[in-house]
Amino acid sequence: MSTSLHICKIGGKMLQDDQQQAEALAYFQQIDGPKILVHGGGPKANELIKQLQLQPQMHQGRRITDGPTLEVVVMVYAGLLNTSLVGNLQQLGCNAIGLSGADGNLLLATTRPPQPIDFGYVGDIQQVNVQLLQQLLAIGLTPVCCAITHDGQGQLLNTNADTIATQLAIALAPHFDVSLHFCFEKPGVLQVPTDDQSVIARLSPSSFEHYKQEGVIANGMLPKLHNAFSALPHQLREIKIGNPTSIQEGYATTICA
Amino acid sequence: MSTSLHICKIGGKMLQDDQQQAEALAYFQQIDGPKILVHGGGPKANELIKQLQLQPQMHQGRRITDGPTLEVVVMVYAGLLNTSLVGNLQQLGCNAIGLSGADGNLLLATTRPPQPIDFGYVGDIQQVNVQLLQQLLAIGLTPVCCAITHDGQGQLLNTNADTIATQLAIALAPHFDVSLHFCFEKPGVLQVPTDDQSVIARLSPSSFEHYKQEGVIANGMLPKLHNAFSALPHQLREIKIGNPTSIQEGYATTICA
Repeated sequence: MSTSLHICKIGGKMLQDDQQQAEALAYFQQIDGPKILVHGGGPKANELIKQLQLQPQMHQGRRITDGPTLEVVVMVYAGLLNTSLVGNLQQLGCNAIGLSGADGNLLLATTRPPQPIDFGYVGDIQQVNVQLLQQLLAIGLTPVCCAITHDGQGQLLNTNADTIATQLAIALAPHFDVSLHFCFEKPGVLQVPTDDQSVIARLSPSSFEHYKQEGVIANGMLPKLHNAFSALPHQLREIKIGNPTSIQEGYATTICA
Repeated sequence: MSTSLHICKIGGKMLQDDQQQAEALAYFQQIDGPKILVHGGGPKANELIKQLQLQPQMHQGRRITDGPTLEVVVMVYAGLLNTSLVGNLQQLGCNAIGLSGADGNLLLATTRPPQPIDFGYVGDIQQVNVQLLQQLLAIGLTPVCCAITHDGQGQLLNTNADTIATQLAIALAPHFDVSLHFCFEKPGVLQVPTDDQSVIARLSPSSFEHYKQEGVIANGMLPKLHNAFSALPHQLREIKIGNPTSIQEGYATTICA
C-alpha cells in the first residue's frame, strides 16, 4: 500500500482574510504525513493591479495576463503570498518550502495558443517534476506551490492554481495514495449559492451535467469542477471541495464517479 | 580535502540591466560543482516603492523597512527577481531553486533592536540551516537566495544580501572549500571611483583602514567590505569583489589577511 499524500489547494479569497487564512493553515498543519499546499492569490493580485493603475482583464473567470500583469502576479503569488505562507507555516512547526514552477523545473508549461482567446502569458502544464517532489518530501519538507509555471526558455507563465493542484495530484497518483482537497470560503458546492446549508454531498459527472444545465452550478465553480473531474480517472483516494471545517468534519462535497 | 563550493552574490544594479544580468548569469552558470547564488534587488524595489507612491528611506546605505516597504521588498526580491533568475538559470541548464530565508527555515533572524537607529523590519541572522543546503546541493539543485529572512514567528524580515552571502559562506566553510564572490557593476574596489583601471588588487584589513582614512573607500563600498572582511577569519578558499569579467580573468579585488 502506498504512502498517503494530501494535496490541498487554498483559494486566493481565503488568503485575503486573516482569520480564514489562519483556519486554512491550521487545518493544513494538522494533516499527518507528506502534504503539498497549492495556493491562488487572484484578489490580492487585483489589488496591486489597481494600485498600479493597470486594468484586471478576465475571460470566463480566467485572467488575461499581459506583460505588466505577469510581473504583478509573479510578485504577488511567488513573492508576497508564497513567502508569507511559508513563514506562517514555519511558525506552526511545518517545515514548508515555497516553490514556483521554475524552481527545480517543477512545472514545465507551454504558452497557451492565442486562438480562440489570447490569454497572454498563461501556461498549460506539460510536465510535473515528480522526482523533485519525492526528494523534497523525503527530506521532510512541505512544498508550498504558487500558481506560476515556466516554459524552460526563461519565460514565466501564469497558471490556474486549481489546475496546478489537479496536475500535481494526477502526476503523483502512481506513487502515493493521494487525497485532493480544494479549500475555499464555502463549505462545498452549493445548490443555492446563498445557503451554506445546501452543500451537495456527492457530485458525479452525470449529476454535475444535470446541475450545470439547470444553472445551479455556474460561473467560477465551473473551472474548479472541470479540474476536479479531470482527476477522477486517476484513482485518487478522495477529491473534496469545501472549507477547512466542512472538509475536516466530513460534510464537504465529494467528487465521485 | 573538502568539495569546492562557490557562493556568488549578484548586486541589484546588475539585475536592472538585461545585458549585465545575462553576463552575471552566464558567469555563474559556467562555474563547475556545487554553487549558491545570492542576489539583491534594491534599485527594482525603489522603482516599485515610487510607483506605489511610498518613500524609500535609507540610513548610511541601508534601507529602513516599514510595513508597506517590507511588502514591496518581499514582492520584488522573493517574487519578481528571484523567480525570474531561477527561470533564466533553468534556461541555461542550471537546476536552480529559489529560496527566501523562510523556505526550509534557511535563515533564522531576529529583528534588529530599534536603538540607535530603528531600521524597522530588518533581520540580523542568528542561524543558517546548513543541513538544508547540503541536502539541496546533494540532489543537484542550485540554491538561489534572496535577501529575505524570517524570525520563526511568522514575521518576514529584510536582510542585506551581502550579509546573507557572507553568513552562508561562514556557515558552510567547515563543510566545503568555499569561494565567496561579490559580483557588482565595477571590476573591483577602485582607488579612483571613476577609473575602472584603478582596481585595488589585494585588500587587507590594514590597507582597508588606510584607504578608509584617506577617504578613498567610502559610502556603499563600506558595508560590502565590512561583510567581506568578516569572512576572513573563517578559512575560505578566496574572497573576491568584482564584475563577471574581472573575477573570471583574475583582476578583481582579492580580500586577504
